Amino acid sequence: MALVVQKYGGSSLADAEQIKSVARRIARTCDAGNQVVVVVSAMGDTTDELIELANSISNHPDPREMDVLLSTGELVSCTITAMALRSLGYRAISLSGAQAGITTNTSHGQAQIAGMNPERIMEELTSGDIVIVAGFQGVTPEMDVTTLGRGGSDTTAVALAAALRAARCEVYTDVDGIYTADPRRVPRAQKLDEIGFEEMLELASYGAKMNPRSIELGMVYDTPILVASSFDDTPGTLIHGEADMNRDVGEIRNRVGGIATDTNVAKITVLSVRDRPGIAASLFEPLADQGISVDVIVQNASVGGATDLTFTVKRTDLGRAQQVVEEVARELGGGEVVTASDLAKLSIVGTGMLDATGYASKMFRTLADAKINIEMITTSEIRITCIVAEAQLDRAARALHSAFDLDKPE
Amino acid sequence: MALVVQKYGGSSLADAEQIKSVARRIARTCDAGNQVVVVVSAMGDTTDELIELANSISNHPDPREMDVLLSTGELVSCTITAMALRSLGYRAISLSGAQAGITTNTSHGQAQIAGMNPERIMEELTSGDIVIVAGFQGVTPEMDVTTLGRGGSDTTAVALAAALRAARCEVYTDVDGIYTADPRRVPRAQKLDEIGFEEMLELASYGAKMNPRSIELGMVYDTPILVASSFDDTPGTLIHGEADMNRDVGEIRNRVGGIATDTNVAKITVLSVRDRPGIAASLFEPLADQGISVDVIVQNASVGGATDLTFTVKRTDLGRAQQVVEEVARELGGGEVVTASDLAKLSIVGTGMLDATGYASKMFRTLADAKINIEMITTSEIRITCIVAEAQLDRAARALHSAFDLDKPE
Repeated sequence: MALVVQKYGGSSLADAEQIKSVARRIARTCDAGNQVVVVVSAMGDTTDELIELANSISNHPDPREMDVLLSTGELVSCTITAMALRSLGYRAISLSGAQAGITTNTSHGQAQIAGMNPERIMEELTSGDIVIVAGFQGVTPEMDVTTLGRGGSDTTAVALAAALRAARCEVYTDVDGIYTADPRRVPRAQKLDEIGFEEMLELASYGAKMNPRSIELGMVYDTPILVASSFDDTPGTLIHGEADMNRDVGEIRNRVGGIATDTNVAKITVLSVRDRPGIAASLFEPLADQGISVDVIVQNASVGGATDLTFTVKRTDLGRAQQVVEEVARELGGGEVVTASDLAKLSIVGTGMLDATGYASKMFRTLADAKINIEMITTSEIRITCIVAEAQLDRAARALHSAFDLDKPE
Repeated sequence: MALVVQKYGGSSLADAEQIKSVARRIARTCDAGNQVVVVVSAMGDTTDELIELANSISNHPDPREMDVLLSTGELVSCTITAMALRSLGYRAISLSGAQAGITTNTSHGQAQIAGMNPERIMEELTSGDIVIVAGFQGVTPEMDVTTLGRGGSDTTAVALAAALRAARCEVYTDVDGIYTADPRRVPRAQKLDEIGFEEMLELASYGAKMNPRSIELGMVYDTPILVASSFDDTPGTLIHGEADMNRDVGEIRNRVGGIATDTNVAKITVLSVRDRPGIAASLFEPLADQGISVDVIVQNASVGGATDLTFTVKRTDLGRAQQVVEEVARELGGGEVVTASDLAKLSIVGTGMLDATGYASKMFRTLADAKINIEMITTSEIRITCIVAEAQLDRAARALHSAFDLDKPE
């Protein structure tokens, strides 16, 4: 008897009919002789509706209160899913994040899991229940509800799978797996049968529809994650430790496994900062204090003791980041702060890519031939990322997808 | 500095504008130098919508799951109210029933408060916060969410006021106080300035729009309860220990203070039960086990060793009650079970009424003159109740209201 953790996203739980259909899928997994723990997101657009309600009351809703509000969405869907299973004749019980033993730090809105104590889950499983856990939420040591940020239900599911030493974590959503690129941007994108954790982490961080933290957790605890559609029975994509991405693109022994795209990007440039040691720290520390992550950083060569410092943040963080940066720039006697939010990130991802030569130059050449200007460049061991104009993103992604032989056959 | 507990019902919190208006009212109480604890019900029709959602999934939603579902309504309204206060520049924090220290037994759907530990509330008050508590909910020792039944937010408010030794509990709703009768049935009903706990308990149990359990709590802990409108600043009705109801009806020294009406009534008759000792117990014990309260009971004189047993239950309990009764009747070798749900309860309420003579006969005479048939009769120390046809209820209530000189001047 295996223990399986399944996660269902909001688009799979949009209404009563869909929830009944999800309940039948859970029941089948149970019938197959598995113990099942299910993690659910809020139904359909519930989270957006709750945010709208909060915004109708307050311009700056308090993060702690916002977490109480948003957490109700998952409470509703988990108890409704439990009811649906019971009405099919199965034993099922819903648990809140707190009841499921998920404790977090106090960073409301983007809390980090601090501890897992799945004792209650184990009790309920042992007594024969299917356990439905409210995703996306935890509780501080002071018993205040927290949320794990967008996509947090993925994190809940993988963390539970790891803590319960589950055979695997199955993430059901409205897409049928992980693709070589976003099919809406690159029509010839192909579904991958499997992918390694590291590559998936880069794809997820750079645009694919999975929470990167959940992939990290899967990698650290070596918990295989299956991403599949809740609407049909196609096989999906298995994210695990032993995948060789090269196999997935067929005959061609190409080390680029996928193209990642991300439009949640904005650029901030501080002009004419005095170029002295510690200048970057004094700028980026206050951003980190505000929980704003800085991604690509470029510092131009110093001219006459002054330098231009350019970096990217999430577009959704731009307002707050700009406020912080302008304050610091004033203190440093620095110059003007310029921002742009019409940019996008475009990455090629593949294991061992940087061990081999020619991938970077092929990427830059392909973009140049397509008359696409590169604004900034950054790399990791298995990724090369260019910042380009958002208006050119789709064309650029298609060009790279073709150039690295990822296109599916016509 | 006084500590005041305020409760706002769902009809006072129907949308963002109403919530902002409630927040301004809370703020005024705070500005007047009070510490304020606020208990809220779910916004508008939220509870009904959640019940509808559950019914779309399951014919018999599990009571434990139902409580998780329903409790989310109050979580939303308490956090939204806290946000509204913060956006007015006040310090405010929302607490769930569990965080507010309200523990209950495990009777899901109609849980009884088992303990109050308002430590966290006191901390937050001391630190300068207005505390907004989710009404209607508590938590079992196993940390499972429970609800206190319809009107449970009244109970939460009065229990908190008692536990915090608050100066008073203010219940804001969509009516401006307690009336001598339901103004929708009796147009000449008058608002009472004050009323005693005992009379209010009878009125509440027999139709007025307050949860009887909350009145009992106020009586036991001697916590004055003000019932007033959240929509204007008219004075409302003070329910307290020292009220002399006689004063409230003006010149006339009449001991009937109010007329109570209740249409949540159904009648069950078991025909031809063998008349032997213990027959009532064997019928009513299984009903009590199911949490069904039996109200008026009439046993007809025994004819030839067989008797007809008639009693009333809440109309909302009729289905379940009938099932239990039919089972027991079969076991007892009893006869047919007949039910009717077109009845209503009509009561006259007043302190010391039964010490004086003539009230019962005046009630029966008035109803007879109005050609209204009395089906059953029951009395308490301060109440006389008749079961009549629902179709005749309004006419009967108006006749009694006039007969006992309760009508407001034309």
